Amino acid sequence: MKFLLATVAATVIATVAFAADPVPADLRATALDIFKPLPSTYPAVNDNPITKEKIDLGKALFFDPRLSASGVFSCNSCHNLATGGDDNLETSIGHGWQKGPRNSPTALNAVFNEAQFWDGRAEDLKAQAKGPIQAGVEMANTPAQVVATLKSMPKYVDWFKAAFPSDADPVTFDNMAKAIEAFEATLITPAPFDAYLNGDDGAMTAEQKEGLALFMDKGCASCHSGINIGGNGYYPFGLIEKPGSEVLPENDKGRFAVTATADDSYVFRAAPLRNVTLTAPYFHSGKVWNLRQAVAIMGTSQLGEDLSETEVDRIVAFLGSLEGRMPEVVYPVLPAETGDTPLPSGDVK
Amino acid sequence: MKFLLATVAATVIATVAFAADPVPADLRATALDIFKPLPSTYPAVNDNPITKEKIDLGKALFFDPRLSASGVFSCNSCHNLATGGDDNLETSIGHGWQKGPRNSPTALNAVFNEAQFWDGRAEDLKAQAKGPIQAGVEMANTPAQVVATLKSMPKYVDWFKAAFPSDADPVTFDNMAKAIEAFEATLITPAPFDAYLNGDDGAMTAEQKEGLALFMDKGCASCHSGINIGGNGYYPFGLIEKPGSEVLPENDKGRFAVTATADDSYVFRAAPLRNVTLTAPYFHSGKVWNLRQAVAIMGTSQLGEDLSETEVDRIVAFLGSLEGRMPEVVYPVLPAETGDTPLPSGDVK
Repeated sequence: MKFLLATVAATVIATVAFAADPVPADLRATALDIFKPLPSTYPAVNDNPITKEKIDLGKALFFDPRLSASGVFSCNSCHNLATGGDDNLETSIGHGWQKGPRNSPTALNAVFNEAQFWDGRAEDLKAQAKGPIQAGVEMANTPAQVVATLKSMPKYVDWFKAAFPSDADPVTFDNMAKAIEAFEATLITPAPFDAYLNGDDGAMTAEQKEGLALFMDKGCASCHSGINIGGNGYYPFGLIEKPGSEVLPENDKGRFAVTATADDSYVFRAAPLRNVTLTAPYFHSGKVWNLRQAVAIMGTSQLGEDLSETEVDRIVAFLGSLEGRMPEVVYPVLPAETGDTPLPSGDVK
Repeated sequence: MKFLLATVAATVIATVAFAADPVPADLRATALDIFKPLPSTYPAVNDNPITKEKIDLGKALFFDPRLSASGVFSCNSCHNLATGGDDNLETSIGHGWQKGPRNSPTALNAVFNEAQFWDGRAEDLKAQAKGPIQAGVEMANTPAQVVATLKSMPKYVDWFKAAFPSDADPVTFDNMAKAIEAFEATLITPAPFDAYLNGDDGAMTAEQKEGLALFMDKGCASCHSGINIGGNGYYPFGLIEKPGSEVLPENDKGRFAVTATADDSYVFRAAPLRNVTLTAPYFHSGKVWNLRQAVAIMGTSQLGEDLSETEVDRIVAFLGSLEGRMPEVVYPVLPAETGDTPLPSGDVK
C-alpha cells in the first residue's frame, strides 16, 4: 500500500513538472537541425578502408602495453573501455609517473570528432594514435622500437599481413596507427538520445526533453552540436567570462600552441558530450569532478548565464540521455614475445 | 609437387627422430602418476561457493583500476589476461613508479597452486588478492578506502548484494577478495598436455613426448608436478649449485621471510609451468628472459645436470605443450564514479 501511494505521488509530481514546462511540439525537428543520431554502421574514415582484419589487429594493438617503452601502458590505460573510454584522472599518469598536461578524452565515438586532442592538432584518429605512443610523459616509445617490437612476434606479422594484404612491408608505424583507427571506429555507443532523434518518443524522460530544449534555447548547442554533441569546432574557454585559474590554468593556451594565432589563446575544441556522465573529471584541465558544477561553469563562462538549480538539473538529465550502450569487446589474447623483442625499460630519459 | 615432397621429407625426419629416442610405451601411465589434467569444471575453493554473480563481480573488480590509490593499476595491470596472465616485466612497476620485489606470477590456473606468492605467504587466492591492493609499491590503497570507493557506486552495491545475498553488509574487503578469487577460479587454460593425459596420443608431437619423458627422467618433475606442473611445494633455489647473484639476488631470502627458519633461506615455491612459454622473464627475480636458458639453469642449479642442447630443446618443446587455450573474457563495463567516490591520488607517502 505504501508502495502504491509512493508511485501515485511520483506520477503526480512528474505530471506537474511536465505541465509547468511543456515540451515544445517541434522539439525533435529543432534538435534534428542541430544534432545527428549515430549511424547504424561503422563510419568510413579517410584513406583507411575498415576491414575485419584491421579491426581485430587494431584491438590487439589498443590493448597491448608493449607499445610503451616501459611495457606498462597501452592505449586502453588512459582510454579505458571499462570506464567510459577515459581514465577518470585529472590528467593521466604516464611513463616515470609523470602527469600529462591535459585530461584524457574518451575514445568512444571519437571517430566522429572533427579533429583529435583538446586542441585539434591531429586531423584524425590515425594521426592521434601516434602521439601518446611517442610522448615522453605518456608511453615514451619510438616508432623504430614499436616496429621492432611488432616485427619480433610472428603472429603480429601475420596479422599485419592480413590487415594490409597489398603492402610489401606491412608492419609499419603508419599501419599500426591505421589499425588502431579502424578498431576505434567501432567504438560507438547508441544512446536514448539517438533513439529519440530516430523517432522514439518514449526513449527520453520528460525532464530529459526539457533539458534538451534548454540546451538548445540557452545556447549550449551553439558549440556542442552535431553527431557528437561537440567535438566539431573550436571556441575560447571563457567566451563571456574567464573562469578562475583553478579551472583554466594560465600556462595552457590551448589551440594557440597549434596555430600561433593570438585569437586562439585559450581556445579549445568543444568537448564531445556523449557519455559525459561517465567521464569525470571535466574540462581540458580535469579540475572539475561534478557534472552539475561543470554545467554551471559553462553557463557563466560561455553564455553569461547564471543557470538556476532546476535548469542545471534538467540539462544534466539531458546529458544522461547521451549515455550509450557500450560496445562488447572480447579481451584480446596477444602474441608472446620472442628473443628478438626489445626489452621493456621504465628508465626516464 | 614441391609441397608433397616437403611433407614426405618432414615425415621422414620426424620418423628418424622418433626412432632414435622411442617414446616409452608407458609414458602416459608414468605421467599420470606425477601430473593431473585440468578438470572440466571450475574447482571448488575453500569457504567461497562460486556463483555466476560472484564471478561477474570478481571480473569487474579484477579489471577496476579504482582499487588502486592512484586509479592507474588494476589486478589485470600486473596479471594481464592478454599476455599470459602476467606483465612480462622483470618485476612490476607500481605506485609512484616503484619496482616490486619479485616477478609477477600468472593468474592463469593459479587456483590450483597449493599457496600463493613466490614464498607461499597467502594460503589461497582470496588472501592473495588483498596483498597487492595494500602494498605501497603496488596499488598503495587501504581496505577502508577500497570499501568507500565500492560503496560510492550503487551498481557495485547491487552486484555485491547479488553475489553475497545472505550478508547484511555485503560490500566488504573480504567479499571483494572472495569475488576476485571466484573470477580467478575460472581462468583455466586446457592445453595439449591435458589432451594427451586424457588419452589423445596425437595431442603432443614426438619431440614434446620425448621432452616429457626427459622432464620426468632427469628429475624436473620432482618439484614441478601435479595439476600445475609446479606450484605445490617449496624448494631451495640452488639445491645442488647456487646460481650467481645476477639470477638469485642475495637480499631476497624467499620463504625465510615467512617462516624465519634457516632451512628456508632461498626457498621458493616451485613455479607452476602452465603457459610458461608466455610468461618470460623467469624466476622470482625475473632476470632470465630466455626459456632455454632458464631450463639450463634449472638443470645445473637444481639437478646438477649439464643438459645437452638437444635435451633442452626437447624439454622446451614439452613446455610448449603446456600452453593452453585462453579463457574468453568479455571486457567489463564498470560502474561510473559518483560524488561520493574518493578521488584518486598518485601521491607517494
